[in-house]
Amino acid sequence: MRFFTLQIIHRFRGSRNTIPYEYVDNDISNRRIETLVDGVFAIVLTLLVLEIKSPHPDSNLRLTQQLIALSPKIFAYFLSFFILGLLWFGHQMMAHYVKRSDRAHILLNLLFLMFISLIPFSAALLGENLPYHAATMVYGINLFVTGLIQYLQWEYMSGKNRLIDPELDRRIVRAMQKTFLTIPLIYGVAIGVSFVSIPAALLLYGLGTVIGATKITAIFHRSHNPQL
Amino acid sequence: MRFFTLQIIHRFRGSRNTIPYEYVDNDISNRRIETLVDGVFAIVLTLLVLEIKSPHPDSNLRLTQQLIALSPKIFAYFLSFFILGLLWFGHQMMAHYVKRSDRAHILLNLLFLMFISLIPFSAALLGENLPYHAATMVYGINLFVTGLIQYLQWEYMSGKNRLIDPELDRRIVRAMQKTFLTIPLIYGVAIGVSFVSIPAALLLYGLGTVIGATKITAIFHRSHNPQL
Amino acid sequence: MRFFTLQIIHRFRGSRNTIPYEYVDNDISNRRIETLVDGVFAIVLTLLVLEIKSPHPDSNLRLTQQLIALSPKIFAYFLSFFILGLLWFGHQMMAHYVKRSDRAHILLNLLFLMFISLIPFSAALLGENLPYHAATMVYGINLFVTGLIQYLQWEYMSGKNRLIDPELDRRIVRAMQKTFLTIPLIYGVAIGVSFVSIPAALLLYGLGTVIGATKITAIFHRSHNPQL
Amino acid sequence: MRFFTLQIIHRFRGSRNTIPYEYVDNDISNRRIETLVDGVFAIVLTLLVLEIKSPHPDSNLRLTQQLIALSPKIFAYFLSFFILGLLWFGHQMMAHYVKRSDRAHILLNLLFLMFISLIPFSAALLGENLPYHAATMVYGINLFVTGLIQYLQWEYMSGKNRLIDPELDRRIVRAMQKTFLTIPLIYGVAIGVSFVSIPAALLLYGLGTVIGATKITAIFHRSHNPQL
Repeated sequence: MRFFTLQIIHRFRGSRNTIPYEYVDNDISNRRIETLVDGVFAIVLTLLVLEIKSPHPDSNLRLTQQLIALSPKIFAYFLSFFILGLLWFGHQMMAHYVKRSDRAHILLNLLFLMFISLIPFSAALLGENLPYHAATMVYGINLFVTGLIQYLQWEYMSGKNRLIDPELDRRIVRAMQKTFLTIPLIYGVAIGVSFVSIPAALLLYGLGTVIGATKITAIFHRSHNPQL
Repeated sequence: MRFFTLQIIHRFRGSRNTIPYEYVDNDISNRRIETLVDGVFAIVLTLLVLEIKSPHPDSNLRLTQQLIALSPKIFAYFLSFFILGLLWFGHQMMAHYVKRSDRAHILLNLLFLMFISLIPFSAALLGENLPYHAATMVYGINLFVTGLIQYLQWEYMSGKNRLIDPELDRRIVRAMQKTFLTIPLIYGVAIGVSFVSIPAALLLYGLGTVIGATKITAIFHRSHNPQL
Repeated sequence: MRFFTLQIIHRFRGSRNTIPYEYVDNDISNRRIETLVDGVFAIVLTLLVLEIKSPHPDSNLRLTQQLIALSPKIFAYFLSFFILGLLWFGHQMMAHYVKRSDRAHILLNLLFLMFISLIPFSAALLGENLPYHAATMVYGINLFVTGLIQYLQWEYMSGKNRLIDPELDRRIVRAMQKTFLTIPLIYGVAIGVSFVSIPAALLLYGLGTVIGATKITAIFHRSHNPQL
Repeated sequence: MRFFTLQIIHRFRGSRNTIPYEYVDNDISNRRIETLVDGVFAIVLTLLVLEIKSPHPDSNLRLTQQLIALSPKIFAYFLSFFILGLLWFGHQMMAHYVKRSDRAHILLNLLFLMFISLIPFSAALLGENLPYHAATMVYGINLFVTGLIQYLQWEYMSGKNRLIDPELDRRIVRAMQKTFLTIPLIYGVAIGVSFVSIPAALLLYGLGTVIGATKITAIFHRSHNPQL
């Protein structure tokens, strides 16, 4: 299909050689990066549930008890699902503004996916070892590194208008920058807090995500309603 | 590719600034939400089978016996596959009518996926603990909550024509509303029934799905053949 | 993006109401069915490998021995991958010719996916129980039913030109019909043969797939080079 | 959607029969092959993490020790993720240049996916048996065969301009050829080296991937900036 459309566009725009190269880049890399990213997110979101193993007891009473005992895992499931939702939405926001692709962009995306794909492991670790500090810390480090890579992606894309539309409103660029930096910073503070109190650290993971989601969706909302 | 096509459209419609914002929203959010949703459904449908573990006996007779013993799991597999098929078709129907996206819409979709992704767990629970009431109930609660979120999605989208085409036939809007409410209601009744009889509850899960599927596909059929 | 393009098409073709309804159907259902089908195939193909568990021995010699002991599972992996490749290609061929969608079409697709998703289980069963007849038979039944549903899909689509282009060359319709019927028939014969000889049945599973793949790709080749 | 666009194109280009057949091929096969390939890569990348099982100890100290003991698996995870990233990028590069499809092309793609899907097994084997030569060798054979199939894909596509645009710069064709041959050659040498030193072989797997990634992205970069 793409090639068909390509044909039409060539007819409209003249010969292939006159197409600005950035469009070609964009076509090839960004579309397939998006497919890969959406695929990885869909799978990671779904793999989270594999860590909640169905109990197999010998009575209804014990089944009920074992289901209640699963609650830390179910907590880790919902927390991680929500965090991944934020990271996915952040990626989608960036993809909305990106107009070109290059080597560093592809590498940063693969690096991002490397740590996204680790989250089912960290979530399982957290769900199975809620009372132990090391689990809360590893979970936090995973979130922190993933958030940091997402921030670096935006820095790279928007710096010198490398990959974004140069006419994009600078206020949006700066608001994105600030938000994508705030999220890993809160996760970083939460790692520190985890040495003192595990519940406080978990609360901060959730809080950081709520703040991040609120800010990013606010930018999304404002950018599509410029009169606001 | 999208950006190419975007270019064409800009040429047809004039400068970017004159494009109604809802189209931009729609392009960005709905397309990728759909990809994510279809991805999650494809994976959830496929993960169901992981709960049916291959036996590894020491004779052909015992293998046959162990295969027969798998039948509750195979029943849970087919039932859950069918229910997920209905929920997927319902989502597709909505996506057909939705024209815009906003923050609440994205959040409701993530919430929907959160409970869709839990179904492999609930299905495993059901398949392994068919005689116990708690399993039938947890399964039902998962279906009930998922169906309810789907109903709320439609309420939000169609209320005040928030995200749908204002010219969409009100009879379709109301028929969708009624159907998406009926499905979780039947699942809710089934949860109640499960306290009295597990087989009756399971029958109701199936029946609710058959009724839901019949109604939704009927709306689908009618909406494309308006003379009916 | 779709909605954008929809806009263009509306401009070319006049108001929405004048669009033949089958195109609308096709847009909504076939595109998302294809996404779902491709997603399920990608996952099923990849889940096959999860049945080959990595050994964890205490010496290099034992590791080598245990790797050699994995060969039945690796055989089941390659056989199933190849068969799934054929089934995927068959589905793609049909999707090439289908122009409309309806309720029965969607239901047949879900039914098809139900048995496609069971193949990782049947493959694991086969790989772990190669010497036992029940495993070879269950594997064959899974293939037979899946192939039969694929044949019924084509029967439904092409019968009375229900969902296909009425101008499609009848020779292609009949060649597809014959091929999609031959495949499950060979699998059915293989199930019978499995009562006499397991290796002969396995050979027939492979042979049926080779014959099916040869015929389908030949139709594909011929249909695009009508002078042949 | 595709069919809509098809309609437009038919209007632009006249009746169906006058469309060069290679475009039809391309539409059908290449688009869905790409979807399947991207799907398989997304899943394989994500399945890698399933091999890192969360420990479940009884104290924070033991949890920390067990997390450190996971490091060979985490090493195998990152190495395999990086290698799969290279193979995915290589496939994307080829897909950029391919204009047609045929039977051998589809078969080569399925063969490629067969060995891509085996990588989670080989990675698990490596991560669990780092000290044993057999694991390093099996891992290397998997990489070597996969790289070789990728090279053969390019040979087939570009030989006699079978599936690529005949006007494609011959320097790009030859640079791709050389790179896609270099990668499996380095993996092949690494297999030999593994008999002498496992760490040296692992280093070569990484090095081969870095060299391959550098060369492929350089071709990608140059092909879009022809003045370089």
